[in-house]
Amino acid sequence: MTRPGEPIGPLGDVGSAEMRDALHRMADWVADYRDGLPERRIVPVVAPGEVTAGLPASMPERGEPLADILRDLDDVVMPGVVHWGHPAFLGYFGSTSNGPALLGEIAAAALNVSAMTWRTSPAATELETVVLHWIQQLIGLPDAFMGIVYDTASVAVLHALAAARELAVGDVRKDGLIGRELPVLRVYASEQAHSSLDKAMIVLGLGEANVVRIATDALYRMDIVALRAAIAADIERGRRPMAVIATAGTTTSAAVDPLREIAAVCAEQGAWMHVDAAYGGAIGALPEGRALLQGMELADSVVVNPHKWLFVPLDFSTLYTRRPAVLRQLFSLVPEYLRGDAGTAGETIDYMDYGIQLGRRFRALKAWMVLRAFGASGIASRIREHCRLALHLAALVQGEPPFVLATPVSMGIVCFRCEPAGWSDAARDRLNEAVVAAVNASGTGYLTHSVLGGRTVQRIGFGNVLTTEEHLHQVWAQVVRESRRLVLAGPITEG
Amino acid sequence: MTRPGEPIGPLGDVGSAEMRDALHRMADWVADYRDGLPERRIVPVVAPGEVTAGLPASMPERGEPLADILRDLDDVVMPGVVHWGHPAFLGYFGSTSNGPALLGEIAAAALNVSAMTWRTSPAATELETVVLHWIQQLIGLPDAFMGIVYDTASVAVLHALAAARELAVGDVRKDGLIGRELPVLRVYASEQAHSSLDKAMIVLGLGEANVVRIATDALYRMDIVALRAAIAADIERGRRPMAVIATAGTTTSAAVDPLREIAAVCAEQGAWMHVDAAYGGAIGALPEGRALLQGMELADSVVVNPHKWLFVPLDFSTLYTRRPAVLRQLFSLVPEYLRGDAGTAGETIDYMDYGIQLGRRFRALKAWMVLRAFGASGIASRIREHCRLALHLAALVQGEPPFVLATPVSMGIVCFRCEPAGWSDAARDRLNEAVVAAVNASGTGYLTHSVLGGRTVQRIGFGNVLTTEEHLHQVWAQVVRESRRLVLAGPITEG
Repeated sequence: MTRPGEPIGPLGDVGSAEMRDALHRMADWVADYRDGLPERRIVPVVAPGEVTAGLPASMPERGEPLADILRDLDDVVMPGVVHWGHPAFLGYFGSTSNGPALLGEIAAAALNVSAMTWRTSPAATELETVVLHWIQQLIGLPDAFMGIVYDTASVAVLHALAAARELAVGDVRKDGLIGRELPVLRVYASEQAHSSLDKAMIVLGLGEANVVRIATDALYRMDIVALRAAIAADIERGRRPMAVIATAGTTTSAAVDPLREIAAVCAEQGAWMHVDAAYGGAIGALPEGRALLQGMELADSVVVNPHKWLFVPLDFSTLYTRRPAVLRQLFSLVPEYLRGDAGTAGETIDYMDYGIQLGRRFRALKAWMVLRAFGASGIASRIREHCRLALHLAALVQGEPPFVLATPVSMGIVCFRCEPAGWSDAARDRLNEAVVAAVNASGTGYLTHSVLGGRTVQRIGFGNVLTTEEHLHQVWAQVVRESRRLVLAGPITEG
Repeated sequence: MTRPGEPIGPLGDVGSAEMRDALHRMADWVADYRDGLPERRIVPVVAPGEVTAGLPASMPERGEPLADILRDLDDVVMPGVVHWGHPAFLGYFGSTSNGPALLGEIAAAALNVSAMTWRTSPAATELETVVLHWIQQLIGLPDAFMGIVYDTASVAVLHALAAARELAVGDVRKDGLIGRELPVLRVYASEQAHSSLDKAMIVLGLGEANVVRIATDALYRMDIVALRAAIAADIERGRRPMAVIATAGTTTSAAVDPLREIAAVCAEQGAWMHVDAAYGGAIGALPEGRALLQGMELADSVVVNPHKWLFVPLDFSTLYTRRPAVLRQLFSLVPEYLRGDAGTAGETIDYMDYGIQLGRRFRALKAWMVLRAFGASGIASRIREHCRLALHLAALVQGEPPFVLATPVSMGIVCFRCEPAGWSDAARDRLNEAVVAAVNASGTGYLTHSVLGGRTVQRIGFGNVLTTEEHLHQVWAQVVRESRRLVLAGPITEG
């Protein structure tokens, strides 16, 4: 359609030869990026507005040659990228991309199908079902659960709580919540539970004030006595316990709430039990990790994010539920133009019936590539290695006073704190925050801070298959060095 | 880490040389796919369960060589794919992938960043802002609107209506809807409006019964007199008009509601005006198309899906709103572990503050590639060509009795019907459905059916940059041939 090097013609796509050439150049770009990743600065030195300033304020009137755009990708965009895939990027839950996943993403992008119904995409729908089963078996969730893929855990918990709401009071689909005599619906979650829950409650019209944050024990696990007390107090006041969100792997310290006890409470109260195992669900891939998740199988719904610790890139979140019929009853709504495509009488699944989103990417492909390329034992080995790295780091922390572990290591997460003698708690908070900032500013290591028990901690999470003990040693050495420097400089004053 | 051909090692990723090789093989796979696309069957001959049967019920215990997985991609997955990108796939809104977009997807997958906050991804955040401005300028939305990227229009309208709900009654974020003296909140949309609206109302706790479907005129545009009457009747009964959803490009026939008149009604009532321009917004890229969208600039929010008609692949939906502060007030909720990353005092945008989703892919990259590679004039030419193809098809329809246009062509959408003399309406419905099924079953053409004015119509939508007049002629010839065959066979009896 166009000759290589010429701007794309007015009506068609890039010509065949030019596109093949561009794809190979992109293949090298990606391969070079992966090869050079360990040598890159993790966080860029970039001021707000700097990327924008490198780009025209208006889009070009005429099309530009691909080579020019790819040059700007290197010259303008890349200098503003945080390299989440760098092996010394140890923030959040680590990066979970990898080679096989990337190949799956490329194929999915080329196909660009929408997995609304089985008919609009039989392969995408069936591969989704297969992959959901594989993950379920991998982490030990019983067959009684049905899986659904959403983009994020935030959207998954929104669906879980929508189902809980419908079960709690009925007819919300049709009539909504206004103008009805309804008890206030309450949701319980530990102080450590993820904020996506609050957003879900806002959207659902239930209000963030009706999220009851339950105190945690010394290990940041939900305190069951406090949960029971909160529920009793609510019932006393005429409020109804709608759901309990148990977390299996909290965002800050990977703490696991007492799932069995919470299940018992939910059963007594007729409340929906949702387990946020977005991160921690992956530990079920280890035989020795299953014990940590005991009780998860009693839940009404469980969210697991393969894009957190099952080596699938963003976005790929799975909701498993024992009550898919409730979701279907809430969200099945087949417009005329899809009627012929939908519903092959129980033989097939139309995933659009189980959620808000109609357009659905072929997300299963990347997960399928990862699960097959790594295999169950390969996934388990990698997770086990991340746990080993976490324990190894914990030992380093404990051997390096005035560093202390803020809480015992859980899964691949380590929280620690530098506590120089004679410093006030507040000064120590500022110190630990400053250490994180200094390490991150170096560009050669990356970690995050968080708060545990009201005090600022440093936090390292493992999740990248490229991270080795060497990267860990390097980042830890940076943490120690920056801490010493800052401790020597004396307590940091406020502001 | 591993030698080419060997399964991936237990701990790392695919080795450098093997991955480079695989990327080049994938580059050829994609290029071959694109080159061979016009020769493929559009819909596969595949029975429910057939793809699944080709795959093991359990994931492999040991990792498999990439070559084996890629072979199964060809042998098991591909035979079950509907080829949305085929130039004769004229269903729904057509496929909008293309070469430059694909390169952007590949780069984004390699980077795998999460654009939660500016700090976690300056380039992704700023490129998102830039691309949102470019699209805004392209389609003629005033600068008073701020854009946000979501995955789908379903999620976008959910956010728009959440904002409308907050403005209508206040304190929903904190207290929710239960136990308060609130008027029933009503939303108005034409009978042709998209079903995502109903799903949003279900999620928001407002109830699908509170979606008031307004009758349409002869051109399937919302009837303003009926809208006013419905609102008056609701107010009479103590209900509050919360929002009106105007559609600029309905799903079935690309009808455009009277936007200015609706804006006037909203202004009078203090109701939120949302414009669903998911498909039709793109027509603003044509100077001659702007007239169709007059009044859109008066809305409180507008959704435009670049993944519908701006040549960006799934998923990429943009919500533009004059009232971003309401969204921010509803959804800004910064957890401790992101506190240091968030909020650089008005200098930067943290998109996580404007919505439910926290994990956000680097979606801007693919849109940026498309907008630059095609340019404003290139985008406009392609859209104009699709409109021309639609008008051309309409002429063919009108020259081929007993075919009739079901409604005048709007944008790139043509709805038509075969109406053999002497057949009942019901028999004609069955005929038109059967024609669509027969053409689609052929594997060489694809269109959809829908319903207009209670009668089944055949529907063709243009959106693929590869579709030429030749493809159109071919699909039209199939439609005519199948229709003749079925008409000759006589009226189809029910069931």
